[in-house]
Amino acid sequence: MQTVEKWGMLEIAAPGKTEGNPFTDYTVQAVFTSKNETVTLEGFYDGDGIYKARFMPCFEGEYRYRLFGSFGEEINGSFLVTAPGEKNHGPVRVANGYHFAYEDGTPYYPVGTTCYAWAHQPEKVRQKTLEELDKGYFNKLRFCVFPKHYIHNFKDPLTFPYEGTPVDSSGLCEEKFSYQPDFSGNCWDFTRFNPAHFARIERCIVELQQRGMQADIIVMHPYDRWGFSAMTREEDTLYWRYVIARFSAYRNLWWSLANEYDLLKKKLEDWEHYAALLCRLDPYRHLRGIHNCIAFYEHSRPWVTHCSLQRQDLYRHVEYTDEYRVRWGKPVVWDEISYEGNLDMGWGNISGQELTRRFWEASLRGGYAGHGETFLDEENDILWWSHGGKLHGESPARIRFLHEILMQTPGHGLKRATGSFDETVAIPDTPFSAAGYEIHYYGFGRPGFRDFIKPEGERWRAEIIDTWEMTVTDAGIHSGRFRLKLPGKEYMAVRLQKMGDIL
Amino acid sequence: MQTVEKWGMLEIAAPGKTEGNPFTDYTVQAVFTSKNETVTLEGFYDGDGIYKARFMPCFEGEYRYRLFGSFGEEINGSFLVTAPGEKNHGPVRVANGYHFAYEDGTPYYPVGTTCYAWAHQPEKVRQKTLEELDKGYFNKLRFCVFPKHYIHNFKDPLTFPYEGTPVDSSGLCEEKFSYQPDFSGNCWDFTRFNPAHFARIERCIVELQQRGMQADIIVMHPYDRWGFSAMTREEDTLYWRYVIARFSAYRNLWWSLANEYDLLKKKLEDWEHYAALLCRLDPYRHLRGIHNCIAFYEHSRPWVTHCSLQRQDLYRHVEYTDEYRVRWGKPVVWDEISYEGNLDMGWGNISGQELTRRFWEASLRGGYAGHGETFLDEENDILWWSHGGKLHGESPARIRFLHEILMQTPGHGLKRATGSFDETVAIPDTPFSAAGYEIHYYGFGRPGFRDFIKPEGERWRAEIIDTWEMTVTDAGIHSGRFRLKLPGKEYMAVRLQKMGDIL
Repeated sequence: MQTVEKWGMLEIAAPGKTEGNPFTDYTVQAVFTSKNETVTLEGFYDGDGIYKARFMPCFEGEYRYRLFGSFGEEINGSFLVTAPGEKNHGPVRVANGYHFAYEDGTPYYPVGTTCYAWAHQPEKVRQKTLEELDKGYFNKLRFCVFPKHYIHNFKDPLTFPYEGTPVDSSGLCEEKFSYQPDFSGNCWDFTRFNPAHFARIERCIVELQQRGMQADIIVMHPYDRWGFSAMTREEDTLYWRYVIARFSAYRNLWWSLANEYDLLKKKLEDWEHYAALLCRLDPYRHLRGIHNCIAFYEHSRPWVTHCSLQRQDLYRHVEYTDEYRVRWGKPVVWDEISYEGNLDMGWGNISGQELTRRFWEASLRGGYAGHGETFLDEENDILWWSHGGKLHGESPARIRFLHEILMQTPGHGLKRATGSFDETVAIPDTPFSAAGYEIHYYGFGRPGFRDFIKPEGERWRAEIIDTWEMTVTDAGIHSGRFRLKLPGKEYMAVRLQKMGDIL
Repeated sequence: MQTVEKWGMLEIAAPGKTEGNPFTDYTVQAVFTSKNETVTLEGFYDGDGIYKARFMPCFEGEYRYRLFGSFGEEINGSFLVTAPGEKNHGPVRVANGYHFAYEDGTPYYPVGTTCYAWAHQPEKVRQKTLEELDKGYFNKLRFCVFPKHYIHNFKDPLTFPYEGTPVDSSGLCEEKFSYQPDFSGNCWDFTRFNPAHFARIERCIVELQQRGMQADIIVMHPYDRWGFSAMTREEDTLYWRYVIARFSAYRNLWWSLANEYDLLKKKLEDWEHYAALLCRLDPYRHLRGIHNCIAFYEHSRPWVTHCSLQRQDLYRHVEYTDEYRVRWGKPVVWDEISYEGNLDMGWGNISGQELTRRFWEASLRGGYAGHGETFLDEENDILWWSHGGKLHGESPARIRFLHEILMQTPGHGLKRATGSFDETVAIPDTPFSAAGYEIHYYGFGRPGFRDFIKPEGERWRAEIIDTWEMTVTDAGIHSGRFRLKLPGKEYMAVRLQKMGDIL
């Protein structure tokens, strides 16, 4: 009997009709049944006369399936779901209100990055990206299904999502770039997908999964010269159903409905319609977010699982994390807070120190932050933020260090403690474990020392964390009022852990 | 005939009664008359049986005076007012709504610093302070009339403002410091001033005047162990009248009603009462402000000439400058935005880079900023912010450089131009000179280049300003669309000046 591990992906394939338009003219559905669950889902046409359905089992044991519909002959079968592999913790869920955990309960602290168009790059660039990802800096990557048209992104992608021909891209350059292209010169059949394009995305999803990373898939975006951002509601719906049918069974999937949704010429009802499709057609309820340019989406909408945010303010953003937790009552993930780099634009030219500071500030206020890198590359014009490739910045290693610290949090996640105006104090975000663990972060402050007061009868271990040098230095066991000497430089933190009472 | 220059200080003195309490038992008034003005003002008792009145003439030519009251024999006389000396531009006034100019019309761009208690330090420290001020970093200094009780400030001052004896200060230390002292152990007569104490302040005012600096005098403050902050309304009134009579005639005087007014146990009516006294008794209408700890004063009150602000937010403050200009319609002066240093507290431990950035951001948004320095000094505990002494930081030279740039502004002052989210763009704050002068400031952004568009027919000179290295580099003459290469580092600015049209 065929086997698949729990939260693995099982694919059923069957030949079927090819007359007419197989993407639209026939239905294909599947039902998967075990003693614990029955899941009905949509299949899809994968080209070459083959229809498929994909399934992610959430329980161990024997399953039966049926693949049926007007596409052709029904097929039936069974398979066995085995225990998950050591590194397979299932899909990521919201845990403890403002945080995340894998379905098996293992905490997941997102430290994401963004390579919008890495899936569409030449293989050499893609392999370089994977090499960098192997270094374990990040555990989430945001990227687009559609190709990207934007400054530094004028080359045609290796594949297109539809059958047809693209507008001529020769002679495109930054000076001629417009945020309002007219899409003329394109010739697409929006009812016929190019399965190879979607297979390319899926390969990326799997490569991330192999590295313990979440694939934060951006389904729609406005950086477009082909018209993919300006399809009709009906065409969009077809696209959404195709994407959901193909991608949902990957356990490391997150849905980002859009990047900068407010730059797309869609109505609020459109977004709510796509979200409803997702809620109905993704049987695994993968995480769902929607990312803004200026105006935040109304993240209190029930389908929004977490707030995917871009900064709205050049000077303060992650420092609003705790306020936005209160406003929306959901995890706050700052997916875009300026990238480390030296582009002309403010969204892409902060220092590694400043980006690292934003990561700490977001994390210690009970949210999460996202990385991106935009260093000018006059020779190849390969920027991590879009293409992947090689990392040049100083923040990735520091982000990995922050993740190590976050992993040591008792319980699920941190939250901002009420306290001094002069520092960000974080404690565990669970009442039962709140006492006895504190991180005091000083950001751009440069204290030469700090005083602390703990009850006389308690023993507290103090450690000095240099978030830039990535060191944790023991600073002794203390009781009552005590002073810690600090180096008077930026980006320092103090961690205090209760060791027990003095007997 | 006695002579004094315009906006100079003329003092008349006469012997008088010494029975009873000369500070309260007798009246002393003076009238100064020329063909252009008649000024009536209050005199004061200066100890040793001498009564005085001080006057700042605002016109050239002959004046007559009368000193009279119950203090003793009336005296009369005359003097000649000559043209002001080369460096004497008169008192500073609000100009152009949001800016400042001396009374003779010369623009004044405040770049202030704070040495709260410098007037009360040993002469050696004071001389060191003057040496630093001689370097021309600043053109305004905030300091207190009353001595200061605070961390790093436990020594008794050289003089006290009243007759009496202070609480024993031996054994005072940081651990025993309280924001709520009970003032017991003091024995003061709040009706009998110590003229030597006020003469010490006056000497400081004159020393600043000699250096072209404004004396931003803080009349009340909460850092107190002697009870000077907790006198009755009647006692306060006596104090205000004494201070006004003694100090008003110094042309470089600014009135700061209080530092952190909201930490004093005064009512709103009290502040309005002191302000009314000032408006009535200071015949020269010196600038009047009131500085907050947390809550801003209602700066739209008619007696407030400019908004003297402390940051209310750790992460964003000077970036609100343009908004506060709109809110209050007055000059915005950020007198406290964290000091360069390494104290434990966030108000005193930012870098020279960050303080310099805040100065630029405030100035280019159409306001002004204030400096302070708080580096720990374990040996002598002398911190510029309170004591003066030696400067250790990196910001003063950069502040002087900013002042040089501000001095080149066409018209009176800059304002934020509407424009990019990614930069702070400043243009002259006067409609007739607004065209043709722009400063683009990138703060912590690190653009590798920037593009600009000017009409094809215009010639614009571009300069690249490194606000940290203090250099201005010519970047050519340009028309139409042009790109400037920038070094991809923080704290850069671009200045564009229209050179004329292409013929």
